[in-house]
Amino acid sequence: MKKIYLDHAATTPVRKEVLEAMRLYFSEKFGNASSLHSFGKDAKEALSKSRKTIAKIINARANEIIFTSGGTESNNLAIKGVAFANRDKGNHIITSKIEHPAILKPCKWLEKQGFKVTYLNVDKYGVVNPKDVEKAITKNTILVSIMHANNEIGTIEPIAEIGKICKKHKILFHTDAVQSFGKLPINVKKMNINLLSASSHKIYGPKGVGMLYVNRKVNIEPILHGGGHEYKLRSGTENVAGIIGFAKAVELATKEMKKEGERQIKLRNKLIKEISKIKDSYLNGHPTFRLPNNINFWFKGVEGESLLLRLDEKGIAASTQSACSSSSLKPSHVLTAIGLSHEQSHGSLRLTLGKENTEQDINHVLEVLPQIINSLRKISPFKW
Amino acid sequence: MKKIYLDHAATTPVRKEVLEAMRLYFSEKFGNASSLHSFGKDAKEALSKSRKTIAKIINARANEIIFTSGGTESNNLAIKGVAFANRDKGNHIITSKIEHPAILKPCKWLEKQGFKVTYLNVDKYGVVNPKDVEKAITKNTILVSIMHANNEIGTIEPIAEIGKICKKHKILFHTDAVQSFGKLPINVKKMNINLLSASSHKIYGPKGVGMLYVNRKVNIEPILHGGGHEYKLRSGTENVAGIIGFAKAVELATKEMKKEGERQIKLRNKLIKEISKIKDSYLNGHPTFRLPNNINFWFKGVEGESLLLRLDEKGIAASTQSACSSSSLKPSHVLTAIGLSHEQSHGSLRLTLGKENTEQDINHVLEVLPQIINSLRKISPFKW
Repeated sequence: MKKIYLDHAATTPVRKEVLEAMRLYFSEKFGNASSLHSFGKDAKEALSKSRKTIAKIINARANEIIFTSGGTESNNLAIKGVAFANRDKGNHIITSKIEHPAILKPCKWLEKQGFKVTYLNVDKYGVVNPKDVEKAITKNTILVSIMHANNEIGTIEPIAEIGKICKKHKILFHTDAVQSFGKLPINVKKMNINLLSASSHKIYGPKGVGMLYVNRKVNIEPILHGGGHEYKLRSGTENVAGIIGFAKAVELATKEMKKEGERQIKLRNKLIKEISKIKDSYLNGHPTFRLPNNINFWFKGVEGESLLLRLDEKGIAASTQSACSSSSLKPSHVLTAIGLSHEQSHGSLRLTLGKENTEQDINHVLEVLPQIINSLRKISPFKW
Repeated sequence: MKKIYLDHAATTPVRKEVLEAMRLYFSEKFGNASSLHSFGKDAKEALSKSRKTIAKIINARANEIIFTSGGTESNNLAIKGVAFANRDKGNHIITSKIEHPAILKPCKWLEKQGFKVTYLNVDKYGVVNPKDVEKAITKNTILVSIMHANNEIGTIEPIAEIGKICKKHKILFHTDAVQSFGKLPINVKKMNINLLSASSHKIYGPKGVGMLYVNRKVNIEPILHGGGHEYKLRSGTENVAGIIGFAKAVELATKEMKKEGERQIKLRNKLIKEISKIKDSYLNGHPTFRLPNNINFWFKGVEGESLLLRLDEKGIAASTQSACSSSSLKPSHVLTAIGLSHEQSHGSLRLTLGKENTEQDINHVLEVLPQIINSLRKISPFKW
């Protein structure tokens, strides 16, 4: 049975060009980038090249790219690092209710350390209103953090507008771009972004690598202290092979962004159009301000987890909510924020496309999905 | 020219069995371990197997192994995680002056957050006296952190004795075992270790992976908040391929520990014996309580960095101090702590052996080194 992987928001396979780029750096050019001998110099050079590649793509400087172990660490560094470094200026942070747990949990933790956090509401599509951001600003506000695109429902946030407001009020603006980086164009200067988190494994790079763009004017302190690597902002021997893979993945994603994005949008729209025809199915997230690869529906009278397992039996890998919360029994905080009830939330399904998915895959899903939903509804404990 | 790599304390190449073990997990079994479908289950299973392999080797339980991005993160998690979680019990930490910066810097940072830290002196060999640990304990002491073996001078600390003292006083004991893990036998139960940091890339595993052993009775809080991975102690999508590589590296290192250790001790002792014959050369660190692969000398009238560059020209990769501090102009805090002057410290050289080094390599070093030292002394700015 051919497996159809439709969970690219959770993770992606490492593409062969990426693995090829990494290969030499595991066992041959394996030096510690801090060592002064030739092995060290080779590693340092490769690191520096990767930094330049990534910086250029978002219109940043090389020394503004801080390599981390992934999106979660980047988000923690952004939120806590800015909060601690700017404590003397104020203790207020603005974010939204639909951020990833790697933003929300650090914010909750900061509240215990004496910070105040405003969690903005979103509309029924999951859109943050820039006016709400502006209204929430107080004289103690030091940071605004709003994600570029939501990981569950794919909604793209108006971050350029939010960036403009933050600039006007001289408040630092961070965006969690883990789901959009390599998929949507990003220009940190034009969008007035001061800090931006990205991850490698969402775009066919290896797991365990990510980065935080930090504008050099930003006052921030490290969360991992030690040898002073990464411009003293992130200690720890650099994962050279991983970083090289990340840079290669970014390079390829950027090159293919337009064409692949258009291809995915066609497949996405077909899926949305056809799934909408299933009785009592409702699209979650915005119909057009939406990641090219995201489809999210709730189905009345269906239990999401059962749906997922039935799809898995048919070789289709999907998810109910984000992978990070998949073992939790709590309804998705994102779906709750856009107004879904407990029942509706648990009846939701996320499909996220990738570059290896074909029209044939989509047709197969469209054949299988309505049957499974029908059969699940027959045994449904929910009234509908 | 054959290159002779003698900087294995800085990092090691990924060995071929490790890369082989990782391979499948980059592009085929690439799932997110939190996903509920078959790709996710494969990843979760591999993760669980790796956890068991590592736990068994140090006599721990699988659920006491927390995978991290490396030694620095493990040390930060241990120090800050225990400090924050036990704030109500006390605010005093005991460590030594020769710890890695990934211990010392988090301690310095905690001092700014209201904690008190005692930095114990060491003797001229770099040994921490367990009696000094006991004397430093106050009713506010919540944590003792003493490294297993020093990264610069190779001295092995009496951690079993220190563990016993901590147990007696009911104080948590952490050891940074980044340099000893896979090289010296470790039994966390017998040695009364509550927390232990280890790193993959020091033992022929990939960079960007490490672990913290946390006894399940330890009260600790995460430093990376988010999706709640790793028993809620370390959020972030698990680096599955990296973790599998780490586990394979640990497995092989353990299997070969005795034989390879004995082989390295012979080479080490030969190097120490022969280098000692160079006029005005002095061994740094303990003559016998010493890592099997560590050689560290200071040479009167020699500038360490010049020595290193000359060796590099001859294809020999060595270091002056730890890689993490190599770009710093400050004298090594470790060499200062064992009583070396600024000049002596800057005249020091570290050679660290690995499994691919042969007797022939050692002979070559012994041929080249005295010549370089002689030639450097001729142009030395130091009086000697």
